[in-house]
Formats: sequence, structure tokens, C-alpha cells
Amino acid sequence: MQNTRQMKIGNIVIGGGAPVAVQSMTNTPTADYDATYRQVCALAQAGCDIVRVTLNHEGAVESFAKLCATSPVPIVADIHYNARLAMAAVEAGASKVRINPGNISRVADLKELAKLCAKCGVGIRIGVNMGSLERAVVEEYGRTARAMVVSALDQAALLEGFGLHDICISVKSSDPKETFDAYRMLAESCDYPLHIGVTEAGGGERAIYKSFDCLGGLLHLGIGDTLRVSLSDDPVEEVRAGIELLRAVGLRRDYVDVMGCPTCGRTTYDVVGISAALREAVASNKSSLKVAVMGCVVNGLGEAGDADIAVVGLTRDKVDIYVLGERRMTLSPDEVVEAVCGLIPTVEKQKEARNG
Amino acid sequence: MQNTRQMKIGNIVIGGGAPVAVQSMTNTPTADYDATYRQVCALAQAGCDIVRVTLNHEGAVESFAKLCATSPVPIVADIHYNARLAMAAVEAGASKVRINPGNISRVADLKELAKLCAKCGVGIRIGVNMGSLERAVVEEYGRTARAMVVSALDQAALLEGFGLHDICISVKSSDPKETFDAYRMLAESCDYPLHIGVTEAGGGERAIYKSFDCLGGLLHLGIGDTLRVSLSDDPVEEVRAGIELLRAVGLRRDYVDVMGCPTCGRTTYDVVGISAALREAVASNKSSLKVAVMGCVVNGLGEAGDADIAVVGLTRDKVDIYVLGERRMTLSPDEVVEAVCGLIPTVEKQKEARNG
Repeated sequence: MQNTRQMKIGNIVIGGGAPVAVQSMTNTPTADYDATYRQVCALAQAGCDIVRVTLNHEGAVESFAKLCATSPVPIVADIHYNARLAMAAVEAGASKVRINPGNISRVADLKELAKLCAKCGVGIRIGVNMGSLERAVVEEYGRTARAMVVSALDQAALLEGFGLHDICISVKSSDPKETFDAYRMLAESCDYPLHIGVTEAGGGERAIYKSFDCLGGLLHLGIGDTLRVSLSDDPVEEVRAGIELLRAVGLRRDYVDVMGCPTCGRTTYDVVGISAALREAVASNKSSLKVAVMGCVVNGLGEAGDADIAVVGLTRDKVDIYVLGERRMTLSPDEVVEAVCGLIPTVEKQKEARNG
Repeated sequence: MQNTRQMKIGNIVIGGGAPVAVQSMTNTPTADYDATYRQVCALAQAGCDIVRVTLNHEGAVESFAKLCATSPVPIVADIHYNARLAMAAVEAGASKVRINPGNISRVADLKELAKLCAKCGVGIRIGVNMGSLERAVVEEYGRTARAMVVSALDQAALLEGFGLHDICISVKSSDPKETFDAYRMLAESCDYPLHIGVTEAGGGERAIYKSFDCLGGLLHLGIGDTLRVSLSDDPVEEVRAGIELLRAVGLRRDYVDVMGCPTCGRTTYDVVGISAALREAVASNKSSLKVAVMGCVVNGLGEAGDADIAVVGLTRDKVDIYVLGERRMTLSPDEVVEAVCGLIPTVEKQKEARNG
């Protein structure tokens, strides 16, 4: 993990090794308090740590203030163009303000905003997007990863100069590779906590893949303190995707990991079917066990060495079940799902006893 | 891209900047020629560049030889324990042999195999798996990323010493982070082409996510010359996933990329629905255009700047369509999918004319 500064967003801490926080953003009209509150609650329920809400006109300030007062999770104001609205958001109780250096650039406005934020203990996210970079930066650096980094660091230096130190940064492009490169560059250049995300990824599987390739890689490099998986979809799906991303990189262990060999000509029994049935059977189980479903004896046991429960094929109608490395029983494949589910609570206790 | 050596696997070149080749492995009994041939053809049809087949006993050699002679794509022999079978595979016409240093370690065997491979112009993949590391390596380094790298490089030095230089390497663990770290270390230590993959990922979405986080990150770093997304599933799914991975990191541009804003309280029309309908409508279109579906004017056009066709919301029932940055028409949202599909062929020609 990169050693970033810590920053508080309401009751959530990001940076400096704190758990990576999952974010999303409401898509209801902010002025409609009821609809927005319902969506904030749905996001919180799905596991969202921080919710961003656009504050795009004066008429939404009252509803925004009520949201800040009632939301179960910290609310971040998303501000474009209008520094006045950013200040209104801080006064309304926002836990953080996101500004876009490409469209709030009057230094006098920034100074006033930074001073107010510093006074109220509210941080700012400098949210750079490739598509809305300042003209001057584009003229010098083109629309490149470096241009986003320069834009962000210039803005951070300004805010620091005005006495605001609670700063986090994002540099998002719709191109995953540019995004990846920008964050790497940024992580080498500063110790601000980083909010990672690919923007305008679109919807469906491909949007998830673009985000996971990029954000997963960054997280494996230790880069990223909070994240949003942007999807053209129900925001709750962004939260689910964010949590799955953290699981996939190994930063959350709140599920049964059903590993399994990819099968080959040595496979003796129905690995694919049993593996799928097992995934379904343990879908809502929160114990952090690893279960491996292996096709053959050849690699089976060795390669399932770090699994807590391993199913290893012997013949077409016989498999061995190993628990914590020891052979426990020999079964027919159609008994596997029930047997493994039955073993999980005991194995969990055994592991806890060992570790504790 | 890391500057790796090139290596030929049949008519496919990997390394040195060649396109990243997608691999999978059959799961039929190799001795059953008909079933295996059918699966090899299905994999090739799905876009698989190289197919691996286990050669796990003498009785399968004849069928394996027939496969090598008839397959539309290069066949790689997967060998464990038995160096004799590796040599039989080379003589049977394999385009590459995969050996596992954890279970073929007799130096005399390796020498004979290396000399035969060098003579026949057949390369070897040193396929290290965390679960089947040599005991000596585990004793010195534990089951760590470094242990896999040491095992692979020791074996490579041996093979080089015997005159074989066509070597590629894989270092797979079921832990994506360990896998990621091992490949990064390997890429810094050698110029062999690398076969990347996470092993025993399991099946379903989570298995794909584990692989994409790790392999996508590696590809963004320029690491990886050929890949397999291992899934406990139909091998054809591995090929689909491999191709989607290359698309997501931007290494394949053979599809219409439907980008889209993640929607927020500024969104004026049904971005999610139109974006989904558009994805479906262009699913089989191979033109490499970018189409952006943006909720609002505020960020819409700017952030869709690199899209070839952009849909930008104006009001609840009006959107503008931009083509290559110029406004072309104003429509009702329910006319968007048809209009965009109608524009694609023309825009493609315009772009070709510009570039060519």
C-alpha cells in the first residue's frame, strides 16, 4: 500500500492504510429529497461507504442540507462551475466537496472555498476528468495522463497555499490505460489519498471489465484509497461492483472463495457443475474460507494446498474431501455440495481456534 | 510493452510486441480424438490462438499426434511428471511443450528434452504453479512470489545450458496479488515472453474478476505476451473472457465501445436504458467506433470529446447527436438507437477517409 496521508470524510477515514472505501453517486434530482434519501439509503444498505450527490442549483440546497443531516453515510457534494454552490454545500453540512479544476478556476473563488473548508474541517476532492481539462493544460500537455496529473497537482498547490490540507485527488479518463498511467504518475508525485475510477465506462460487463482491469491493477500496486466503479446503471450496481473488486484483489475476505481447477483432459468428474452448485450454495455465507474443487489427483491436492476445504477427484464417481490439508472422507460427487456446506461452520471454528 | 524475445508457437508469434495471443485448454480425454478435435475446433472458432492439450499417458499419444496434424491452431502439450511423454509430444508434432519444474526435475531428462526441442524448433513453456513448487525452493523461499520466480529462472538457466533458447514462462498462483507480484518480478529479471494467468480462479463472475484485476493490471504495465483466463467452465468461455480482457485494456479494438456517463442528479433522460439498448444493437458490429451516451450538457460534450458519435441530453425529451465533434441532429431519446446504428457505417467511412 502506498503511504498516503489520512483524510476524514464524515466518520470514514481514507488513506494511510485505512480500508479502501467504496463510493457511488445518486442519480435522482437532488431537489427531490424523498427520492434522493431513498437512494442514499439503498446505497448504504448495499455497502456504500460514501455517497456523492450533485448540487447543481440553488434550489437543491435545502434538500441537500436535509440529506446531510439524515443520511446514514457521509455525503459528498459534486460541484461544477459554481464555487458559490460549493460554499453552500459546506454550510449545508457536506462531508467533502468535489470540485473539477477544469471548470472552477477563478483563484479568488478557490481561496474563499479553501478557507471555508479549512475552517469547517471539510476536505476537497480535486476531481480531474480528461474530458474537462483546463484549456491551458491541454495546450501544454495535450489530452494525456500527464496533463491530468499536472492539473490536479496545480490545483492542490493552490488549495494548500490557502491553508487547506485535507485534499484527495482523482484523475479519470474513459480510457483505462490513460487512467492507469495517470494514477501511477500521481502516486509517485504526491502523498494525497487517491480516489480511483475510470469515467464514462458505460454499462454492462464490458464497463465492469474496463474498470476492474485498471482499478484492480492499481490496487495490486497499492494505489487507491477510495474508489467508484462508474456504470451507466442503477448506482447500487456500482456498489456491488466496487465490493466485488475489493474481494477480487484480496482486500475483502467476507465471502467463501470457491476456487477450482479449470479442468482438462485429466479431470475425472463434473468439476464445472459441482463448482457452480457450490458457489450458489455458499453465496450468502460470510465466512472467509477457501474451498477448492480440483479435477484430478495429479495436481489436485498440491495445488489446493492453501484451501481450507479441498475436493479432489479420484475417479468418475469418487472424490476425496480434505479439511485443512488432511483427508477427511471419500464421497460420490453428488454428495459434495451438501458435505462441504456442512463442514464450513466447523472448519471456520477450527481455523479461529488455531489463529486465536 | 516490455521488450521480450520473440518465440514461435506453430504459426503464432508471441513476445517482442506481437499481439497478445489467447490460449485455452481442452478438457476432453485426449485419447478420444473425435471429442478433442471437436473442442479444439470450437475453441479456434471462438478466437483461441493456441490450444493446450494434456498428454497424460502413452495411450493418448496417437490421438495427440493426429490432433497436431489436423488442428486449425497450434497445439501445446501439457506435461506433468513424465519427461518421456514430453519427448513423445515433440515427436508427435506439438508446437510447444509445457513442463512444470515442480514435477519434472531430473536433470538428465531435461537435457534430453531440451536437446530434442532445440533440434525440432519446438519451444518449452516453464509453467510454474505455486501449489506444485519444488520442495527445495519452498524450503528456501516459502510459498511466495519470489519462490515461483526463482523456480522458473533456475529451470530456464538449465534449459539454456542445454542449448534451448525458445522458452516462455508462467508463474501462476490462485492468489491474484501473489501472481501479480511474481510476474512483475519476472518481467524485471528476464526478457522471456510471459504467459500470464491466475490459476484455480474457479468459475463465474468472481473468477473472471480475479483474473481481470491481475492480468489487466499486468497488461497495463506492458507485461504479458500470451494469456489464459482459467475458469472452471466450458473452455470456450475462457476464450471469450480472454478476448474481452484484451478489449478492456485497449489491446483489441474490434468492437463498438458504448461509453456512457454513470448518470447523476443532472441526467435529463433515460441514459441507462438507451445505453443498454445500444449495446445490444451493436453487439456483433466489428467497427472500432466509440459511442458515448451522456446524461447532460454540463459535462456531456466535453467529456465525450473522444467519442466518434455522442448522444448528449438536453431535456427529458430531447437529445443532441454529435458526429466527430459536430452537432448533427436533435432527436427524441426513443429515436437514438436507430439513428446511431444508421450513422455507424458512414462515420466509419469518414474516419477511414480521414486516417487514410
